[in-house]
Amino acid sequence: MTDRIQKQMAFIMEIDKVKQVFRQSKLFDKSRYENDAEHSWHICLMVMTLSEYADEPVDTNRVIRMLLIHDLVEIYAGDTFLYDQSREDAAEKEKKAADRIFGILPPDQFREFRDLWDEFEAKETPEARFAGVFDRLEPLMQNFINEGSAWKAHGVTADMVRSRQKVIADGSRKLWEYASFIIEESVRLEYLEE
Amino acid sequence: MTDRIQKQMAFIMEIDKVKQVFRQSKLFDKSRYENDAEHSWHICLMVMTLSEYADEPVDTNRVIRMLLIHDLVEIYAGDTFLYDQSREDAAEKEKKAADRIFGILPPDQFREFRDLWDEFEAKETPEARFAGVFDRLEPLMQNFINEGSAWKAHGVTADMVRSRQKVIADGSRKLWEYASFIIEESVRLEYLEE
Repeated sequence: MTDRIQKQMAFIMEIDKVKQVFRQSKLFDKSRYENDAEHSWHICLMVMTLSEYADEPVDTNRVIRMLLIHDLVEIYAGDTFLYDQSREDAAEKEKKAADRIFGILPPDQFREFRDLWDEFEAKETPEARFAGVFDRLEPLMQNFINEGSAWKAHGVTADMVRSRQKVIADGSRKLWEYASFIIEESVRLEYLEE
Repeated sequence: MTDRIQKQMAFIMEIDKVKQVFRQSKLFDKSRYENDAEHSWHICLMVMTLSEYADEPVDTNRVIRMLLIHDLVEIYAGDTFLYDQSREDAAEKEKKAADRIFGILPPDQFREFRDLWDEFEAKETPEARFAGVFDRLEPLMQNFINEGSAWKAHGVTADMVRSRQKVIADGSRKLWEYASFIIEESVRLEYLEE
């Protein structure tokens, strides 16, 4: 066995831990909290299904690869709730976590995966902006179906949701329209406080 | 809201159910059984990490898309254990399930997703053969780490494993070498009976 394949297999075994990182949102059937592996899989399927709504031309394969790896840092940095005040501190912790998790790979693959993760975080390319759409839209849909359970548990208001979800408009006006509809319906149904 | 986006969103919500389809293999940390969404996510990451070991030139983006959708049929057809005798019956049930799950989508996307799933099942393209490698290799690695728990629970012998896992060699001789090493080590360590 070469050193290269040993490093690759060590990475594959280590990332299994993301299945134990639980999020603030529940599954659509409300039965339990979702973990990061399930979330990552689901938003890749959303890209496959909804790619026609990208406002700019995007390489959807690159979007999918970004989303497959985007939450691996949470193995060491933990999940940070979208409406948490401490998201700035989290960013520093996540950079260190990125070096640690991708550092298990051979150097050329460390560079490739780390660059992809940096691109996702920076939101400066059409691919990163479109990837960001789904990272926000899935929990929004889950919270709506779950009658606002995560919002209520954390005292999240409609304005906080509008402001945090607004980035969806940077990737897709059509999906922002859909997201806005969900937000206003949530207010009307009292899942979300004004 | 158009009829088209409504169908797409209905599909996105329905596929959430695959997170409740549990497999025969446990996570690498042995804590619980793995579900199909986590498995699908994990083997996509394996493709990203191990694509250099494909024996034929493959479009890895297509391999990833195949793996993202390959287990959706199990929402209705259930998980069939690799060493189960009734896998032929399962194939018929899975075709009906494919019509049902992909039939939620608009007609053009039904065709696209159904064709991709058919291609995966038929194993006639380099992409489908390479996809198949990871669908087999992940549970093999899990069973090794878990000291053969699924094999022992179902009375699976070394010859059954060798024969079912042999298809890895159709996609990657290098990864078949790795798989063979795991199988023979499992026999030596008495995780697997000869």
